[in-house]
Amino acid sequence: MSYDFRSDNVAGAAPEVVNALAAASVGSADPYGNDPWSDNVTRRLSDIFETEVAVFPVATGTAANALTLSALVPPYGAVYCHDESHINTDECGAPENFTDGAKLVPLAGPGGKLDPDTLTAALGKAGIGVVHRVQPAALSLTQATEAGTVYRPEEVAALVDVAHGHGMAVHMDGARFANAIARLGCAPADVTWKVGVDVLALGGTKGGCLAAEAVVFFNPALAEDFGFLRKRAGHLVSKGRFLSAQLDAWLADDLWLRLARHANAMADRLSQGLAALPGAELAFPVEANEIFVRLPAAVADGLEAAGYRFYRWDGTLLRLVTAFDTPQAAVDGFLKIAKNLSEKA
Amino acid sequence: MSYDFRSDNVAGAAPEVVNALAAASVGSADPYGNDPWSDNVTRRLSDIFETEVAVFPVATGTAANALTLSALVPPYGAVYCHDESHINTDECGAPENFTDGAKLVPLAGPGGKLDPDTLTAALGKAGIGVVHRVQPAALSLTQATEAGTVYRPEEVAALVDVAHGHGMAVHMDGARFANAIARLGCAPADVTWKVGVDVLALGGTKGGCLAAEAVVFFNPALAEDFGFLRKRAGHLVSKGRFLSAQLDAWLADDLWLRLARHANAMADRLSQGLAALPGAELAFPVEANEIFVRLPAAVADGLEAAGYRFYRWDGTLLRLVTAFDTPQAAVDGFLKIAKNLSEKA
Amino acid sequence: MSYDFRSDNVAGAAPEVVNALAAASVGSADPYGNDPWSDNVTRRLSDIFETEVAVFPVATGTAANALTLSALVPPYGAVYCHDESHINTDECGAPENFTDGAKLVPLAGPGGKLDPDTLTAALGKAGIGVVHRVQPAALSLTQATEAGTVYRPEEVAALVDVAHGHGMAVHMDGARFANAIARLGCAPADVTWKVGVDVLALGGTKGGCLAAEAVVFFNPALAEDFGFLRKRAGHLVSKGRFLSAQLDAWLADDLWLRLARHANAMADRLSQGLAALPGAELAFPVEANEIFVRLPAAVADGLEAAGYRFYRWDGTLLRLVTAFDTPQAAVDGFLKIAKNLSEKA
Amino acid sequence: MSYDFRSDNVAGAAPEVVNALAAASVGSADPYGNDPWSDNVTRRLSDIFETEVAVFPVATGTAANALTLSALVPPYGAVYCHDESHINTDECGAPENFTDGAKLVPLAGPGGKLDPDTLTAALGKAGIGVVHRVQPAALSLTQATEAGTVYRPEEVAALVDVAHGHGMAVHMDGARFANAIARLGCAPADVTWKVGVDVLALGGTKGGCLAAEAVVFFNPALAEDFGFLRKRAGHLVSKGRFLSAQLDAWLADDLWLRLARHANAMADRLSQGLAALPGAELAFPVEANEIFVRLPAAVADGLEAAGYRFYRWDGTLLRLVTAFDTPQAAVDGFLKIAKNLSEKA
Repeated sequence: MSYDFRSDNVAGAAPEVVNALAAASVGSADPYGNDPWSDNVTRRLSDIFETEVAVFPVATGTAANALTLSALVPPYGAVYCHDESHINTDECGAPENFTDGAKLVPLAGPGGKLDPDTLTAALGKAGIGVVHRVQPAALSLTQATEAGTVYRPEEVAALVDVAHGHGMAVHMDGARFANAIARLGCAPADVTWKVGVDVLALGGTKGGCLAAEAVVFFNPALAEDFGFLRKRAGHLVSKGRFLSAQLDAWLADDLWLRLARHANAMADRLSQGLAALPGAELAFPVEANEIFVRLPAAVADGLEAAGYRFYRWDGTLLRLVTAFDTPQAAVDGFLKIAKNLSEKA
Repeated sequence: MSYDFRSDNVAGAAPEVVNALAAASVGSADPYGNDPWSDNVTRRLSDIFETEVAVFPVATGTAANALTLSALVPPYGAVYCHDESHINTDECGAPENFTDGAKLVPLAGPGGKLDPDTLTAALGKAGIGVVHRVQPAALSLTQATEAGTVYRPEEVAALVDVAHGHGMAVHMDGARFANAIARLGCAPADVTWKVGVDVLALGGTKGGCLAAEAVVFFNPALAEDFGFLRKRAGHLVSKGRFLSAQLDAWLADDLWLRLARHANAMADRLSQGLAALPGAELAFPVEANEIFVRLPAAVADGLEAAGYRFYRWDGTLLRLVTAFDTPQAAVDGFLKIAKNLSEKA
Repeated sequence: MSYDFRSDNVAGAAPEVVNALAAASVGSADPYGNDPWSDNVTRRLSDIFETEVAVFPVATGTAANALTLSALVPPYGAVYCHDESHINTDECGAPENFTDGAKLVPLAGPGGKLDPDTLTAALGKAGIGVVHRVQPAALSLTQATEAGTVYRPEEVAALVDVAHGHGMAVHMDGARFANAIARLGCAPADVTWKVGVDVLALGGTKGGCLAAEAVVFFNPALAEDFGFLRKRAGHLVSKGRFLSAQLDAWLADDLWLRLARHANAMADRLSQGLAALPGAELAFPVEANEIFVRLPAAVADGLEAAGYRFYRWDGTLLRLVTAFDTPQAAVDGFLKIAKNLSEKA
Repeated sequence: MSYDFRSDNVAGAAPEVVNALAAASVGSADPYGNDPWSDNVTRRLSDIFETEVAVFPVATGTAANALTLSALVPPYGAVYCHDESHINTDECGAPENFTDGAKLVPLAGPGGKLDPDTLTAALGKAGIGVVHRVQPAALSLTQATEAGTVYRPEEVAALVDVAHGHGMAVHMDGARFANAIARLGCAPADVTWKVGVDVLALGGTKGGCLAAEAVVFFNPALAEDFGFLRKRAGHLVSKGRFLSAQLDAWLADDLWLRLARHANAMADRLSQGLAALPGAELAFPVEANEIFVRLPAAVADGLEAAGYRFYRWDGTLLRLVTAFDTPQAAVDGFLKIAKNLSEKA
């Protein structure tokens, strides 16, 4: 047995989502999101978040993040974010593109998390009101983080307080939001709008959809011109039902959380098994579905030779990601080989 | 019986495409287009166009057009296009957005077509080399046109000659390219690269896919940095197989042409039936799957009252569009009611 | 004697302005517009316009126009303007650049002027609220127009009514605003904010400055973030006194109007002389300092042979522009030769 | 006596420059840079740099830098620069604006200088060719640096080697290039094109002009479309002679170097006097006209109380800048008070 742990975007799609898509493929429907599936998604998300939300489905997480930032930030604005955040490192300048030139201000923070003191200190040197400086306009948080950790509601609240206190809007990159909620066990509202998050880019793709993300505005009034921004970016899908049908199925009956719980459980099982090996060291607490682990070189090499795949993050630091469909057998097979290699080493 | 003739984007998706998508949903695959389905699409299009092409799937036609233009045109460039073209009227400024401010120069032309003399005259007044003027950089042709007509190869060739003679690249908006080829009966190469078209935005969505378009570069060298442009626009789908699996199935075994031939045949049947009614007048030759027809008001009203849907284009001018899945019974039912209404009027 | 009538930007600068600049060149002053000269300019313009204004000097008219539009228009916005307007034809896409891709909607109108019916009709087809269409956001008027005509206050009011009725802001390109006021004889307020103009790009360069324009906001609240927009466009001059000293001198003691009156008087003298020639025909009423005249080819050729310069606008249509410093002798010399040539012809 | 040492942009303009401007203000001249003064500037700079250059005057340093970067970098590009560089900290996002969203990658380095190892290490992690990452496209060096230090020719050469080896162009921000050359005593070519610099933004404003900078392309072929970029940014001055007349006078007879030598000499005198005070400490070698010095708080406070002005850079670190017109008496007066205060403390 072998398995690809490189990322949760190497996974396929959940059968419930695929079946819903197939069911939606027959007959006529109004285009551009004026269809029953899209209405359902808005209703479901309003229920899930316990408040009326405005929802805009798009096909990629990069679009969800960058479009959202473009709605929050003027072109002379600054977006404060973690220096390892996806928007800063892995979107080929999409945030700068969509915001027409706003600047990301990367901040360091352990375990992929920002902390309020670092943010406050950076804002203290920002030159607010000084015409030569880009102006703080948004804070971007990633939940779960790129390091596989999860912000607690009170951590988000503390960061939002600083941001709102400086007139900044708060964006949450939720490519793995489902994994965070599955871990926290709290209501989705508790870690978003109830603690001040303004807009969430909710990821469906990594969680079991084919290609579907939802920009969720907790204050629909803020979304007034978002439709135009989405259209001019080429992100208004004409047969909109095909994005919404995915999200509709994914959100129904807690499927999104059930899938995330599975991915998290597999990550727990995998990380616990690895942590028990001699010479292994977890770089961060495993709180979602990502594991960053240092393994002896011989073990890593042997696992690759056995057909398993993962990212060589940095030197001996490896990244392994579990997904909604990761079989327990794949985890166990991996651990078995790792243990054997470890004993030989 | 009733039917929605408003547009081919109210249609669902072809079963072959849906089935392929479902089949592609199982198991791991490399993300970001590095998957076997994507390779297949490139191979199929290279075969279909009888030349090696570089292919970039995206989810919307607006993205396909605007991204392509951004690869062809500097920000101080001008894109010459028909004044009724989709890029000029229906993309909320996406071409201006993606090109970072290039200017569309709309030209009039009967039947949705540009002609070489109009283009030549416009270029004569363009101020080429004059620093105060935007500089002609691309010609955009729509095939089939927004009026439902089709350029012949020699018509494209004549326009390309003018464009290339002025150092301009040639973009073809092929949202309904399949319908054009189905009508022309020529090889796809004959009306594209063999007559000088540089890049084709090939539309799959209207032709039976869920959401899939392909930017096709006939000279792969021109596409060198297109991947970066696509990524920073948020149009690189992470589970890329789900765009490519659609296109792969759609292009296989001439499905794309068979579906287009059906749509065209339904348009022929419908337009011929309508043309025979007293007081009816076709505005343009019906060469693809769009019909522009003037009908007496009582007839149009009666058809709507019977549940049929179509666009009120301009006053008494109606637009009806057939699709890959339009049932002949819908056409015949429509015509029967139209005839009855016509006789009463 | 010969003279260059091609444009008012071939002229030098008024001695009063040059002297003020020299006087301002000694000693220290706060940079970036925080200097006494800049304060003076704001005070003078508030007096001249009889209301508190916010003023932003820049070095070029293109910057003044394009920056202003960027403050009024979202990137998915549309700017309605005359099809011969400078922003549409002579700024190499600067408005599209500064607005991050907004679209100019050019409208025809005789004598360089827009009329309310044309504007209303265009807005009726704009698709307001339709996500596929750019959204009407600003009306741009040129005063005096590119045809050398001048809008009356009631003409501006009627256009503004349409614009404001559609939620659009109103920009006035006042590269030759001084000439318009000199002709109208009204208070500057009467043809600007009192009839609803929101922002004026007031031109000093053509009127006798070296390089100085002022963006004048009639509602300072609208200008809140203009300073950032100007800076990020590279249009905040570090030794700001050198822009403001020009404007300060130009606005003092009605110099701007006295210079404009001279230019207009020379245009009147020149146009009246030309109109009296056989075969000559003025294309537009001469209301500012620009003359569009058709002259027999032999006359035009002879004048050029004699060393006079003017623009060959279109075929036999010539453009002649007078300036703040055009000597009467140059006008009379031109007319004398024109008369001689005319008699020979 | 008091004096303003805050920056060299609080200074006025050199009499030679002002006189040249006044002389240029009379009579007609071709607009838009097609005037004899502009020709002179190109000729002078070609002589000074011992190679044929293409020159584009603009009114601000921000424009000179940002326009140049826009000519060198694609919108998905990355500009590597010092983290204290002006383009990164003091231009309100102008580089991001002009490049349509390229990203600055700030690197640390002592004394305001980059070093090749840091650059190489950063490029090693850049993800060249990876579609998710912005692509290294330009290196920006500041000469003299923001810390008042100066790159030696061999230092520039080593950095250029790394940049060119990665296919990056090299931009030099020369707002204080004159001060650097005055210090180095080398030929201007020796520290620019002969060691691989591609484009220099040569600053005249800080050195004695009113508002004039020159973008200098060492390879004129690279400048082919720069005229369009400048125009669409509103930086083509219509009465172009007024920029060029400044530069023409400033470059004539080594005036630019003479003025810079004076500023440098005043900085030397000032820094040497300060360094001799107890408790004073120069933060960086004084190699141009900027001094960064730590002074006891009582001394700094007393100097301000005496009417002298300087920047409180960071805590007790002060910045003092001398200019082309700084009187020796101002320096000596400052030092005398500083000494008195120091003795009392």
